[in-house]
Amino acid sequence: MSLVVVGSVAYDGVETPHGKVDRMLGGAATYIALAAAYFTPVKLVAVVGDDFAPEDGALLASRDIDLAGLERVAGGKTFFWAGVYSADMNDRTTLRTDLNVFADFDPKLPESYRGEPYLLLGNIQPALQRGVLSQMNQLKLAGGDTMNYWIQDFRQELLATIAQWDFLLINDSEAQMLSGWRNLRRAAAAIQAMGPRTLVIKRGEYGAVLFHGDDHFIAPGYLLEEVFDPTGAGDSFAGGFIGYLAGQGVAAKDADVATLRRAVIYGSVMGSFCCEKFGVDRFRSLTREEIDARFREFQSCTQF
Amino acid sequence: MSLVVVGSVAYDGVETPHGKVDRMLGGAATYIALAAAYFTPVKLVAVVGDDFAPEDGALLASRDIDLAGLERVAGGKTFFWAGVYSADMNDRTTLRTDLNVFADFDPKLPESYRGEPYLLLGNIQPALQRGVLSQMNQLKLAGGDTMNYWIQDFRQELLATIAQWDFLLINDSEAQMLSGWRNLRRAAAAIQAMGPRTLVIKRGEYGAVLFHGDDHFIAPGYLLEEVFDPTGAGDSFAGGFIGYLAGQGVAAKDADVATLRRAVIYGSVMGSFCCEKFGVDRFRSLTREEIDARFREFQSCTQF
Repeated sequence: MSLVVVGSVAYDGVETPHGKVDRMLGGAATYIALAAAYFTPVKLVAVVGDDFAPEDGALLASRDIDLAGLERVAGGKTFFWAGVYSADMNDRTTLRTDLNVFADFDPKLPESYRGEPYLLLGNIQPALQRGVLSQMNQLKLAGGDTMNYWIQDFRQELLATIAQWDFLLINDSEAQMLSGWRNLRRAAAAIQAMGPRTLVIKRGEYGAVLFHGDDHFIAPGYLLEEVFDPTGAGDSFAGGFIGYLAGQGVAAKDADVATLRRAVIYGSVMGSFCCEKFGVDRFRSLTREEIDARFREFQSCTQF
Repeated sequence: MSLVVVGSVAYDGVETPHGKVDRMLGGAATYIALAAAYFTPVKLVAVVGDDFAPEDGALLASRDIDLAGLERVAGGKTFFWAGVYSADMNDRTTLRTDLNVFADFDPKLPESYRGEPYLLLGNIQPALQRGVLSQMNQLKLAGGDTMNYWIQDFRQELLATIAQWDFLLINDSEAQMLSGWRNLRRAAAAIQAMGPRTLVIKRGEYGAVLFHGDDHFIAPGYLLEEVFDPTGAGDSFAGGFIGYLAGQGVAAKDADVATLRRAVIYGSVMGSFCCEKFGVDRFRSLTREEIDARFREFQSCTQF
């Protein structure tokens, strides 16, 4: 009963007010997989070049992340992104995007992946997301992420894609762009009418709101003493969210509100840990005990 | 056992994407008093000109708000403010500020006010806030609000003032300005060290965070289907917060975390109702039953 994660594995160059790293492991699928692997077995689908470092593959493998679907392009280079964060870290400027082998990414799932029940589609071209979904034959719960670029320039393709999803994860500005509504409740109703019964609107440091059918759940953001590097926080949220649901064996047809709410909090927990160090570094030492302790801390600082 | 509320009573001209009103009852003390009066008897201290309309006085009096401390300056005009909100209503531009009689406001408390146990100091000159506090002789719980202008240009006076307060209500950008920290937990620790053991940092539509001693409580904002006019929402929050505490008979020396957390939620409830109509209009029809229903709704959409 594994979770299939599709998306980018990359190298990132990141500068925050706390420091600068020229090249480190990154990519949406990397963060999603590392976060989800605390809760459920993960099978990765991504593409890298032959510059992909053995120690980075070893980190993923050490978490029992199945790399059978990690395509290695001989003579190719791995997706590279570089960016710099503003002083308050609420904005970032992209300095460089070299798609490299990611430009021709056309995910083919290994036979061993196709019968898995859980699917998280990271932010890639909507038609590719749809192609992956069609390769799976026993799905219990499927959904994913998208971004402003697909919403603006690939709208019809995106709508055809999310119409098949059980859940969509999206940030607040993207929800506004997709729905035409700034008001979160109106935006959510419009997006749910496009297909996904479950919708998580992420609000950065302010937390997230879960909409499921007629129910909504407002989750505040965890208050970190220091945000070191927000890169990957949204993807780590996604990994915690779907990882927890997969670990609980939840199927879309009988997903209950209480479990989905806990999944959102686990998502917030994973996003908050991600920000504590550069890149994926926090996940090198993070334990499941620390995750559960922070979940309880979330309860104690939100109850009334 | 009344709450004394000190601050501005004004007329406002407001334009939001939903419409425009040239002149309507406003002012911080008006919103605070109207919101608090659902929970506790209120005694108002403010100043108006002889243009202050009888029907506006009648609205306040109809809520058993004591107007013995409402000074009326013959031949003077009431404080007038006009502003226009941005399309998303997160920003507003001041078009006009006529201080009028408010420029010489020097609050003198009627003898009948001085023995009351609760005091909420709205946003006025810090030295005036201190002068009011010194006129009261049986306080159980006192605090108030301030703004960027006093933080920047009257810092030493402000520090001497809040050093005497049990609680401070402040928004997030002001907390950053006052403390020098953008991080909320660090900002809170620095501000608590200035005096107030209880600190509420307001975050607009995202809710508020309560700090009390070493405890903190993250309260999300209520998700309205439509924000009609945000004018007065922060003051209505303050009124709900202190009004609930006064109604419960809470004293600073034994204020418990659970009661303070509920007070923050009642503050959020009152702020959310305030946004549903122009100016104070929602308070003309609002009932205590609706308030308690929204409190329960807050519980149901935040529990996990």
